Amino acid sequence: MTSLPRKDLFDLPPGVIYLDGNSLGPLPRAAGARAARVLQDEWGTQLIRAWNSAGWMDLPARVGNRIAGLIGAAPGSVATGDTLSIKVYQALDAALKMRPERKVILSDSGNFPTDLYMAQGLIDTMGRGHRIVTPASQDVVSAITDDVAVVMLTQVDYRTGRVHDMQAVTEAAHAAGAVMIWDLAHSAGAIPVDLTASAAEFAVGCTYKYLNGGPGAPAFIYARPDVIDGVAPALAGWMGHAEPFAMARDYTPAMSTERLRVGTPPVIQLSILDAALDAFDGLSMDDIRAASVALSDRFIAEVERRCPMLRLVSPRDAGQRGSQVSFAHEQGYAAIQALIAQGVIGDFRPPDIMRFGITPLYLDEADIVAAAERIEAVFRDETWRAPEFNVRSRVT
Amino acid sequence: MTSLPRKDLFDLPPGVIYLDGNSLGPLPRAAGARAARVLQDEWGTQLIRAWNSAGWMDLPARVGNRIAGLIGAAPGSVATGDTLSIKVYQALDAALKMRPERKVILSDSGNFPTDLYMAQGLIDTMGRGHRIVTPASQDVVSAITDDVAVVMLTQVDYRTGRVHDMQAVTEAAHAAGAVMIWDLAHSAGAIPVDLTASAAEFAVGCTYKYLNGGPGAPAFIYARPDVIDGVAPALAGWMGHAEPFAMARDYTPAMSTERLRVGTPPVIQLSILDAALDAFDGLSMDDIRAASVALSDRFIAEVERRCPMLRLVSPRDAGQRGSQVSFAHEQGYAAIQALIAQGVIGDFRPPDIMRFGITPLYLDEADIVAAAERIEAVFRDETWRAPEFNVRSRVT
Repeated sequence: MTSLPRKDLFDLPPGVIYLDGNSLGPLPRAAGARAARVLQDEWGTQLIRAWNSAGWMDLPARVGNRIAGLIGAAPGSVATGDTLSIKVYQALDAALKMRPERKVILSDSGNFPTDLYMAQGLIDTMGRGHRIVTPASQDVVSAITDDVAVVMLTQVDYRTGRVHDMQAVTEAAHAAGAVMIWDLAHSAGAIPVDLTASAAEFAVGCTYKYLNGGPGAPAFIYARPDVIDGVAPALAGWMGHAEPFAMARDYTPAMSTERLRVGTPPVIQLSILDAALDAFDGLSMDDIRAASVALSDRFIAEVERRCPMLRLVSPRDAGQRGSQVSFAHEQGYAAIQALIAQGVIGDFRPPDIMRFGITPLYLDEADIVAAAERIEAVFRDETWRAPEFNVRSRVT
Repeated sequence: MTSLPRKDLFDLPPGVIYLDGNSLGPLPRAAGARAARVLQDEWGTQLIRAWNSAGWMDLPARVGNRIAGLIGAAPGSVATGDTLSIKVYQALDAALKMRPERKVILSDSGNFPTDLYMAQGLIDTMGRGHRIVTPASQDVVSAITDDVAVVMLTQVDYRTGRVHDMQAVTEAAHAAGAVMIWDLAHSAGAIPVDLTASAAEFAVGCTYKYLNGGPGAPAFIYARPDVIDGVAPALAGWMGHAEPFAMARDYTPAMSTERLRVGTPPVIQLSILDAALDAFDGLSMDDIRAASVALSDRFIAEVERRCPMLRLVSPRDAGQRGSQVSFAHEQGYAAIQALIAQGVIGDFRPPDIMRFGITPLYLDEADIVAAAERIEAVFRDETWRAPEFNVRSRVT
């Protein structure tokens, strides 16, 4: 299978081939109606009563359960809300408290920077001499020594798409007595994940990429059911309290991952995310993966045949590659701008990486071939030389 | 002035008198169109490019500047995003780092619980022997001793509406060498606030109450411009980085309060909040305050005349009262449910408080008198005895 019958669920502009769903998924058609409903019928009509009558209080858990189904997690083990950065902080805080005698956070040099910034911020606030170690990704397993408190990795590298072996790394972490945290930012909705089988203690992720939840959609956090009862959250917000509306003076954590909720949930964005998740109904992640691999292999073949000046930086072996394909070129920034101007939307990551997200929910083989043709043209005609494609913007 | 010509900016259900805008403001008419625009024209059409082309990257700062104008803060001093709980954590973290030798967080016993939970969570994570002291609100100033690192208070008590004297308390805190944090949850958009004149170091607040930003609308944080450069955030997210898209390995904080941004901003809810703030355009907080006081005084007079069994727990002196009026009654819970069933929406807070938010943007004298009449009827006819009004729900 190289395409899935879901393209009509998305509202893509005419002429656009969207290869940036790994950065911001496109608008699901269902989102507009759901947003209108939550505004008019819930907020507008039910007002404060909607916390009960429209089920807002339970919305984070309901959405969490839908995400759980996509990442191999048990019902009740995924909480939603906040941003991925906050969820990283919560997972790290919980993990470090589980291994108070150990002082190393092991990550890798390819991790998304905010994960490391949040780790450093937590370390500085704790002030107990923790440190971050970031070997190259291929050296992580050999770096898991018995002073490692927690191994925290993004499963799919945001630049290259290289995938860590979740099972093997988690086993190595546990063998050394370390806690395992997976960042699934580029995994959830992109590749099959089986958190339960991995036995990892924590996982976090965002929902605005492959899950198409919209700009700034809420993040999620998973905790293994047998460890959550021991977690005393640093971010002890009232929505994680066992009885939020008792307004008690002291904090009593809620059962299960509900305690990793913090403040008032972003009801409108959660509702839109809920509607976006409909696109996954009736599909298995294995089906999506099969389509992604076929499209990605075809994309690599087409681009390499047409553009010998581009260097593949994603793993050629689909088994080691997430749902994106990256090529390097010294003019990558300008080339991406030239492509965007022609409606082929990918993105650029420093220093020289052209990223293309392969998202079979709304891409098919014809899109992939057309994109490769236009990439060929940009380099053949040196379209990228135009001055307007060489102005750096804040976001690409 | 007892009413403001803004009622037509809100989409209130027919027959409803909404006295719960201190918990969740009603739907502004502009919100629906703005939500549709951000979904279709920005997310749907511009896709990832909207971070630049639709100004999403700068949206948190633009909205922050509009809030700044309502709380007497300088442009650039207010960051938006996350929840109020998270912003409390950030402010406390920054404040405690400014007074490392002091160990007391002074609040009051009436503070909203989540502020104290977040403080305790930070204390436990820091592990350096800090403690929280919570005297009664009237005893706070005398409790500011020279071991107090930070005084953290909610300016308007969420149950009674009692207002702390921002200027006097801040001066007392500073005289003792403590840092001052104000929680403006029940102040922003409700009463005039002059943060600059107060010289408080930090303030935080939410936007879904008097600012009508919608359920789960993003929070805000203020930092005094001369202290922000010394703040090393615990929650060091990439959106608070000086150059988020450089994807640098190490965290370099952005200038000004931008460093108190954390993760990817909730663009859709921020946009709706932005539209909601239009209701304040062309009004001064002094005008709003004058209308609020007149309506509140009338409400107290009407209810006291009609319902001698109710006990006023808000200050009678308008100068010491925020923009809400609370009465106590042992059957307060059931009475509020009975009122809601008749379209007069207030809320209940344990143990016995009936809360009524007075919000002159969409309430006028006729509403206030009609509400008092229905409260009278509920107690006269003992409507509250009906079994359906005596079932406790999770949220009231």
